[in-house]
Amino acid sequence: MKQPLEKIKVLDFTRVLAGPYCTMLLADMGAEVIKIEKPGTGDDTRGFGPFLNNESGYFTFLNRGKKSIELDLKNPEAIAIIKELVKEADVVIENFRPGVMKKLGLDYESLQLINERIVYASISGFGQYGPYSQRPAYDLVAQAMGGLASITGHAEHPPTRAGSSLGDMSAALYAAYGVMVALFHREQTGEGQYIDIAMVDSIFSLLESNVMRYTVDKIVPERIGSRHPISSPFDIYKANDGYIVIAVANDSLFNKLCRIMGDPGLKEDVRFSTDRARTEHENELKAIIENWLQAYTVEEAVEKINEGGVPSSPILTIDEICEDEHTRVREMLIEMEHPVAGKMKILGNPVKLSKTPVVIKNPSPLLGEHTREIIEKYKNRTKINI
Amino acid sequence: MKQPLEKIKVLDFTRVLAGPYCTMLLADMGAEVIKIEKPGTGDDTRGFGPFLNNESGYFTFLNRGKKSIELDLKNPEAIAIIKELVKEADVVIENFRPGVMKKLGLDYESLQLINERIVYASISGFGQYGPYSQRPAYDLVAQAMGGLASITGHAEHPPTRAGSSLGDMSAALYAAYGVMVALFHREQTGEGQYIDIAMVDSIFSLLESNVMRYTVDKIVPERIGSRHPISSPFDIYKANDGYIVIAVANDSLFNKLCRIMGDPGLKEDVRFSTDRARTEHENELKAIIENWLQAYTVEEAVEKINEGGVPSSPILTIDEICEDEHTRVREMLIEMEHPVAGKMKILGNPVKLSKTPVVIKNPSPLLGEHTREIIEKYKNRTKINI
Repeated sequence: MKQPLEKIKVLDFTRVLAGPYCTMLLADMGAEVIKIEKPGTGDDTRGFGPFLNNESGYFTFLNRGKKSIELDLKNPEAIAIIKELVKEADVVIENFRPGVMKKLGLDYESLQLINERIVYASISGFGQYGPYSQRPAYDLVAQAMGGLASITGHAEHPPTRAGSSLGDMSAALYAAYGVMVALFHREQTGEGQYIDIAMVDSIFSLLESNVMRYTVDKIVPERIGSRHPISSPFDIYKANDGYIVIAVANDSLFNKLCRIMGDPGLKEDVRFSTDRARTEHENELKAIIENWLQAYTVEEAVEKINEGGVPSSPILTIDEICEDEHTRVREMLIEMEHPVAGKMKILGNPVKLSKTPVVIKNPSPLLGEHTREIIEKYKNRTKINI
Repeated sequence: MKQPLEKIKVLDFTRVLAGPYCTMLLADMGAEVIKIEKPGTGDDTRGFGPFLNNESGYFTFLNRGKKSIELDLKNPEAIAIIKELVKEADVVIENFRPGVMKKLGLDYESLQLINERIVYASISGFGQYGPYSQRPAYDLVAQAMGGLASITGHAEHPPTRAGSSLGDMSAALYAAYGVMVALFHREQTGEGQYIDIAMVDSIFSLLESNVMRYTVDKIVPERIGSRHPISSPFDIYKANDGYIVIAVANDSLFNKLCRIMGDPGLKEDVRFSTDRARTEHENELKAIIENWLQAYTVEEAVEKINEGGVPSSPILTIDEICEDEHTRVREMLIEMEHPVAGKMKILGNPVKLSKTPVVIKNPSPLLGEHTREIIEKYKNRTKINI
C-alpha cells in the first residue's frame, strides 16, 4: 500500500522523547526516518525501562519503523557523510540544546547551502531565541514554566505536574504539524525552511481560554481540581470502590440526577436550585452525592447514572484502558514483533486515515542496524572510512 | 506574503473547542476557513467568557482569521448551498456526535460523491466506531477514560484532571497533523480520504511510556504527584513565598545541591548517598530541602540554585507567564484588533516557521459576517433563496 510520506526522507538527530515522538509520527505515515545514534550506546532511551529481553519498551515504542546508523558527530568524516545524506533528504529534525548543531556545522544555515529544499525542525525547551534559550529542559520545567502546573491539582495542594510528559508530547505534535505544513509549502514553491518549536510555548498553547481569562479579565486561573469552573455537579466523585465522573451542566440534567438519586429533595433546596447556586454550594452538594455513592461500586454507579440520562464515566487506570474493548477495536495498542524482544505491545497511532492507514513497516532498529546499508554508497562517494 | 495553505479552502462545521482549534491551526497557516454557524446564536462559545464589549475572548481566540456564514442545517436549501461549497473545498472538518453529519446528508460517503478529492476529518469523544462511540464527550470524560486522570495528582488524593482541556487540544493537534498528511498525499495522488480522531485515543496517546510499563511489565502506573519516578530530588518544592522545581537526576548534581545548601552532611548520609537511596527516602529529603527553602523566596531560591549549577525553575502562574519576557520575545501573545471588542490579547501559535511565519489576516468574524459574500454566487447557481 502507498503511504502518504513514502517519498520523504528524514534525517533524525533526535534523542529521548519529544524529537523521537515527532519522527515516529512521520515514520508511521511512511517516511524513511534515518536515526543517527551515538556509537556504542545510541539514544539514551535504549537504557530506559521497561525491558523485554533487555530491549527497551520505551525505545521500541518511539522508534518503530526507523533505521539506525551509528555516527560519531565529533568525527569530521561522519559529518561529511551526513552532508552527503542531507543532499538527498527532505527533512532534518533535532532536539539538542540550542547551539549544538551549529557547533557541529549542521545548523539550518549550513545545511540549506547543501540542499535549499530542506525542511529543518528544532525542538528545545525554550526555543532557539528568547531569554531562557540556553536553559536545560525537562518536562517538569516545561509544565512549570508554561503555566500548566499552576492550574493542575487542588487549591489546597501544591501545583502539580500532569501525569505524562506533555511538554515533550505536545512539542512533538506541533513540530510534526509544522513539518507537514512546510512540506506542503515546499510542494507548491520548492522552498524549504526552518521551524523552531519550544516545549514551554507548546504547553502554554494548550492552556486555551485560561490565557484569555487573564489577558481580558485580569483573572489569574487557579487550581480547581477536576471540577468545572461554572457548572456543578461536574467533577470526580468517590463511589464505594473507586472514583467516577458525573457531568451535569444544566438544570435539566440536575433534575435527572435527582431522580436517579431517589429524589432526596435536592432540587427544591435553594442551595441547589440553579447552576450558579450549586456551584456556590459545591462542597455541600459533593458530600451529599458521595454519601449516596457509597452504596454503589464504580460499575454500578456509572451504569445507573447513564441509564438515568446523565453523563457519567469511570476513571480508567492504565491497565483498564489497555484492556478495554475500545482500545482493541480502535487498534490503539499494536503488537510488534521485535527480533530481540519478541512480541511487544506498544501504543498505536490515533490518526485513523481511511485510505492510507498507518502501517508500521518494521520494528525499532537495533543500534547501527542500517549503518552499512545507508552509508555504503556515501563511503565510496566521499572516500571515507568509517 | 505567501502562506503555505493559502490555496486551501476548509468548510468548518465545528463548534466549541477541539474542532475550532484544529481549523484555527489551518487558518493560521493561510487556509480560507469558512465556519458554518447556527443562525441567530452561532457557535456556543460566542456565549463563553471572558467578554470584552460583549464579545467572547474564548471565541475570538479560536476563530481568528476565519469567515462566518449562518446556515440552518435543517433547511434543505442550506444543504444544497453547502454541497455547492463542497465542490470547491479541499477540507471538511466537523465535531458533531457520530451520526449527525450522516443524518444531514453531509457525511464523507455523501460528500466524496460530489468531490472525490475532499479530505474530511471528524473529531469526537470516542471516535466514529467502537463501543462508546455514541456517548457524549466532555474533556473531563476524555481525560478520565483515556487514563490520564488516574496518573495525575498525588497518591493520597483523588485522580485529577489536568488544568486545561487536553482532550480537546490534543485531538485538535492530531487532526491538524492528519489533515496535513492527507493533503500531502492528495498532492501526490489526487486521492482524498476520511480521518477519524477520538479525544480518548488522543489522551491515551499522550501517556507515552506509561502504557508500555503496563503492557511489558504489568505495572499499573499510579499517581506520584510531580516527582520523578526514578530520580530524587526531582520534584516541586515549597519555598518561602511559593513553589519551585528542583531537578537533580544524578549524584554529581546532588553534590552540587549539597554545596548550594551549605553542605549539611546530606551526601554522607547513607539515606541519600545514591539516586536509588534518595528516591527511597524521598519524603525525608523533601522535608530537609523545604526546611532549607523557607529562608528564600522563589526568586532567590531559583537564582541561587541555578547559580550553583543545578536546574531549578519557578512555577509560573498564568499572569506571570503572560507577562514574562519569554512570551513577549516568542510572540506567544498577539494583539488583535476586533471591530467590536477592540484590542484583545490572544494566544499565539507555537510553530515558528522561518519563511512563512503565521499571519492572522483577520480577527474572528462577527456571526454571519461573510454570509452574503460567500453564498451570493451559489444562490444564483442553485436558485436558492436564503
